[in-house]
This record gives sequence, C-alpha cells and structure tokens, in this order.
Amino acid sequence: MTPAGAEGRVASRVEERVASAAARRDALRATAAERGLDAVLVTHLLNVRYLTGFTGSNGALLVRADGSGDLLGTDGRYTTQAGAQVPDLELVIDRGTVPALARAAVRRGVARLGYESHDLTVDGLHGLERVLADAAAGRPVPELASVRRAVEAQRAIKDDGEIAALRRACAVADQALAELAGEGALRPGRTELEVGRELDARMLRLGAEAPSFETIVATGANSAIPHHRPDSTVLCEGNFLKLDFGATVDGYHSDMTRTLVLGHAADWQREVYELVAASQAAGRAALVVGADVVAVDSAARDVIVGAGHGDHFTHGLGHGVGLEIHEAPGIGQLGAGTLAAGMAVTVEPGVYLPGHGGVRIEDTLIVTDDAPELLTLTSKELLVL
Amino acid sequence: MTPAGAEGRVASRVEERVASAAARRDALRATAAERGLDAVLVTHLLNVRYLTGFTGSNGALLVRADGSGDLLGTDGRYTTQAGAQVPDLELVIDRGTVPALARAAVRRGVARLGYESHDLTVDGLHGLERVLADAAAGRPVPELASVRRAVEAQRAIKDDGEIAALRRACAVADQALAELAGEGALRPGRTELEVGRELDARMLRLGAEAPSFETIVATGANSAIPHHRPDSTVLCEGNFLKLDFGATVDGYHSDMTRTLVLGHAADWQREVYELVAASQAAGRAALVVGADVVAVDSAARDVIVGAGHGDHFTHGLGHGVGLEIHEAPGIGQLGAGTLAAGMAVTVEPGVYLPGHGGVRIEDTLIVTDDAPELLTLTSKELLVL
Repeated sequence: MTPAGAEGRVASRVEERVASAAARRDALRATAAERGLDAVLVTHLLNVRYLTGFTGSNGALLVRADGSGDLLGTDGRYTTQAGAQVPDLELVIDRGTVPALARAAVRRGVARLGYESHDLTVDGLHGLERVLADAAAGRPVPELASVRRAVEAQRAIKDDGEIAALRRACAVADQALAELAGEGALRPGRTELEVGRELDARMLRLGAEAPSFETIVATGANSAIPHHRPDSTVLCEGNFLKLDFGATVDGYHSDMTRTLVLGHAADWQREVYELVAASQAAGRAALVVGADVVAVDSAARDVIVGAGHGDHFTHGLGHGVGLEIHEAPGIGQLGAGTLAAGMAVTVEPGVYLPGHGGVRIEDTLIVTDDAPELLTLTSKELLVL
Repeated sequence: MTPAGAEGRVASRVEERVASAAARRDALRATAAERGLDAVLVTHLLNVRYLTGFTGSNGALLVRADGSGDLLGTDGRYTTQAGAQVPDLELVIDRGTVPALARAAVRRGVARLGYESHDLTVDGLHGLERVLADAAAGRPVPELASVRRAVEAQRAIKDDGEIAALRRACAVADQALAELAGEGALRPGRTELEVGRELDARMLRLGAEAPSFETIVATGANSAIPHHRPDSTVLCEGNFLKLDFGATVDGYHSDMTRTLVLGHAADWQREVYELVAASQAAGRAALVVGADVVAVDSAARDVIVGAGHGDHFTHGLGHGVGLEIHEAPGIGQLGAGTLAAGMAVTVEPGVYLPGHGGVRIEDTLIVTDDAPELLTLTSKELLVL
C-alpha cells in the first residue's frame, strides 16, 4: 500500500508527463504543417519516447499535422505498458511498427509523409516505400520527405520536467561521489575497476536506472588517456585520479568529471589542474544565450593554448545532454549554431600529458537568460585525498 | 607485475584473436569476390569488432577483395587502443570514419564497393555518395552495392573462440544465481529491484563486463508479463519468481530464464511448469543440423498448443545469441532458414496466464552435429525456495 496522498502525486506526475508529451507533439505538428507534410513518421526510439513518454524497446509514432489523432505503434509485449504510459494515444499493436503505421497513414489519406532520414536505414526506407506502394493499391503513393533532425532540434531545448530530471540525475552522481570520498574508498591500494563498480553500485542504490555510460576511472598515466577504460591498475600515492561518470534518472543522463590527487599534489599537478580549472571557468562564463558554439569552445581553449598546451587538449569542449549522453548542441571547433535558453550542455576541457597524467574537469549546466545553472555541484577545488 | 608466464599467455590470446579476425575477414573477402565487389565498407560497429577485434565506440572497416590490405578507420581517442587490438591492419585516424575510408577506397581504385544497407542510414548513404563523387574528381565514381547481412550470416556460426566466450558468459550467470539462491537472497520480503540489482552486481564481480540486457525479475502476477521490468513489488510466499538474465563476457552474451516458486508450489503452478518444461525439452531435442527454424518452434509450441495454452505462448521460441543478445537465426513461426553446426541459440517457451502468473524456461545452447551443447547449466527442476 502506498501512503495516503502518494497515489494522487503519482497520478499528477503521469498527467504532467502526458501533457508535456502532447505539447511536444504539437510543436512537431507545427513544423510538419510549415513544411507541407500531412504527417511525420518518427522511428528514432528516443524521439518516440520524448514525444509520448513510452519507454518500451520497440515503438514508432505517427504525428498528424491536422491534429486529428496521432498513433503509437508497438508490439504485443508492450500493450499494457503503452496503455498506461500513453493513455491519450491510439495504439497500433503490430510487430512491424513502421509498416503498420505506414498503412495507417495511407488509410488516413496522408499525401506527404515526413520521415527521419538520419535514423531510418537504407533497407528501412526501401521497405517503407514498398509498404506505401502496396497500401496505396493503385491510388497515388504518398510522397516521402525527410524531416531532418526536427525532433532533435526540439530536444535541444529542455522543458521544466526535463531540467528537473537532469537535476535529479546530477544529484545522484554528486551524492555517490561524496559517499565514496567520505568513506575513504578512494585510497591507494584499490583498483580502478573496484572504484568504478562502487561508484556504479552507489548510483543505482541512490535511484539511478543505470550509469549514464561506462564509468571512467583513470589513475596515474592512465589519466592522460581521455577515454580510459578502468582496469586492474592500482591507485597510488601522488597520482591523479580522474573520474568521469553520470547517472540516468527517468531516462535523463548526467555527466561529470572530477580529477583528484591521492596524497600530496606535486607542483606540475597543481599547475595543470589550475590551468584546466581556469579554462573550464572561462568556458562556463561563455555559456550565454546567442553565443556561437565555436566561440564557446574557443573561450575555454584559448586559455589552454595560451599556456602552450593546445596540443594536449585533443577533444571538443562539450556537448548537449538529455535522453542521450551526447546530443545537440555539439560545442567544439567543428560545431555550428548558437546557444539558446534551456539547453543542457557539458563544459569539459582537459589537458593530457602522455605517459604522465591528465586532468579533465566537467560540469553539466543549463543555459539561461542569466548565468548558466550549474547542475553538478561537487567542488572543483583540487581535492587531495 | 604479472607472474612469470602470464605475459606469454596474454600475448598468445592476442595472437589467437588477431588470427580469428583475419580468418573472418578472409571469409568476407571471398563473399565480396563472389559478388563482383572490389571492397566492402563495414559500418555496423559490432561487425567491425567481429572482423577486427577492435572494441572502440567509433570504427569502420574497409575489406578489400584482393587481400591487398584492409583498413580500420577510427578517431584519435582510439589510436593507441586500435594499434594494440588490431596490430595487423593499417589505421586511418579520422573522426569521419566512413568518408575517410571511402576516399581511401577511391584512391585504391575500387570500382564496386559493397556497403551494409541494413546499417547505413539514408543520410549516411547520401553522404557516402557525395564523398565518392568528390573523391573520384571526374573519374568514374565507384558503384555501390548492398552486401545485405553478409557479416551477420558469418556471425551466426560461432568459431571455437566465440563458443568459449559464450561458455564463460553462461557460467557467470549460472554462478551468480547459485550464489544468490545459496545465500537465501531469493526470499519473501525482498523486492524485484533488489534481487535484480544483486544478480547484476554478482555477475560483475564474477567477471562480466555488464549484464547482457536489463535483468528481468518478475514475481506473482508480474511473471505473466513476458518482459516485466523489475519494480518495488515484494516477493511473496507461494508466488512464481521468474528471472531472465545474462552476462556479457568478452562481448558475448549469455541468456537464461529460470522460474522458481517461493515456498509451497500449488498444483496449477506445477502443471504450468511441467508443461513449459516439456515444451522446452521438445524444443531442445529439435535443435539438429538442417532443421527448419519454423519446425523447431513448432516442436516446442505443439506441446503447449496440445495442452490448450497456445494463446498463452505469445512470442517466438528463441533466437541466436553472440555479440548481440538477439541475432541470427530467429527461431519462430515467422523465421526462415535452417540450423547449422556452430549456431548459438536460445530455447525459451513460456506460458503466461494474465493476472495469475507465468513460467518461462530458457537455455543457451550450441547446435552441433550431435546433440546440442547446453551452456546454461542451472537445474531446470522446479526449484522451490
């Protein structure tokens, strides 16, 4: 039994999600109408989740421009779940979700059908074309047009519910690290793998569905490898310990990197750390509405280049984060576009000295009309444990 | 320091993997030559892993029919790792692996290029076509032809190294469950989520890289939902407890379902259990070289249909398992093809009585010229805990 009142809260959370999903579909509907499409067939599973709240592993969605009834397609394993999560949409239960929705589109007189060309495979497109031609049965076959990344563009701007989920995901990661540090679990003698597994286990215990990605624990020379996979390397006195990890909560991913020193920090370690911290602060300060993503990267990168370490910062400054760990916008020299209020992004410069060690400092933040909102709250002072 | 001799063993395991990967590329090379292709561009990341041993998150492979040097494309994060894992291939380091390999193909005079139309997206194909046209610079543009699922067809037949990995993955799952049962962790009062997390944690401690998929723990009426997601439902005396889980070891997935009863088993539970066990035994007995996958499914399904429960067995009998949890061959009424020696498959009939409970029993096995080799060794007696 749930305590009195809990059911009401659960119901209102479901209602909120249903309302958010409906608003997102309305925004896509407006895009479809602008582009002269009668409907959009959404196949990217996370886009389906974003637009409906449905979390099953097989689903597709037909959004109709005239608002006359969207359809969610999934298979028989998910009939109950889809009915509970998406009570406001008609379900089409069929193992072949794309053909089933394509046939439904033809029956409903769709003449121009949008589809996701960045998600549908070449074979998938050919299959879709065949189904449309068969279903048209002599009448004009609906025309297909890519909607490009229309849903990803919407997803880049987070609504309040999404920001709340990101905040919870970041809090779980903060707390897991605080517990580990507080209990002395980050000490010489332990292995990278042990530390990584404990961090993961704690995030799960604190309510994460899963780690956001394979947790990176890199010590000593391994910390100079940007994406080192934790192994049996033993943590040693005087070494860097780089932790890059996050939690997934309600489907939303947090992403944070902290670099600590075990025991006494040498001068070169302090210097590198302070350089990266200064770069990261400059990157955060550049997170303003309207800023070009290349300029944001440069704001942080220039600090490192100015110190003669440009060649040791080998990746972009950051990325959007949400239902995917890497999503729009990319913040780097090869990026394009400008920041908008509501974007959730990481800022994560690094300096990697091969064979010696490396430092990366990373936060997840929300771009706002004011200063960015910091979601990862663990201290960025050089922690000497 | 590794103990004396360990380095030699590690070296010989790397050599074995390099040799296996080379043999797999030779098989693909032969397919390419048969189909009149000068090279194949492999984009499906697991296929790249299968053909090279490379485990990074960004990679593509160009296999040349004339054997004059294959190319592995990846980005700068993986230069060291790719060099260590794939010492026998030339590396092309470029963030855009597909364009870089396409340009290399043109430079090497490839006139007919195979690609994976089930993996490449519509946008990916258009990008590839543009790059080929640009690189040809006025000379004839290479022609593109799908290789269909040529690598997946190879992957369906496991070699000795793959079977050894599957055996280890199954052993980890067996051992994790044995430990949990032995310590009395599967008892009334615990929640599905707790049991699932402990099973996962044990598999990791026993050497799994990850669970094979989101572990299913379903008790009571939840056991009637084929793919129930574990929640806070409490395990109760007299209920079914269905556990569907597996471990990933060296990239290979195990898959096993066991259904237990907590406390005393009621007659209806024994009846359903015995029915599913008989169906599962019939399915295993039908796993012979040359058997049609539809006939294998029928062998198990007929037992359940004969008992009047046909409508309560709502999914296919099984699937191939390897680098993916679901891969070729599919064993079901909608499947096609026949079994061959070396295939790794699951046999997993179920009977689900909505609102009451359900039973599924699943093994992972290898098809051989003799009886199938059973890899999941946990007892299939009805365990009453």
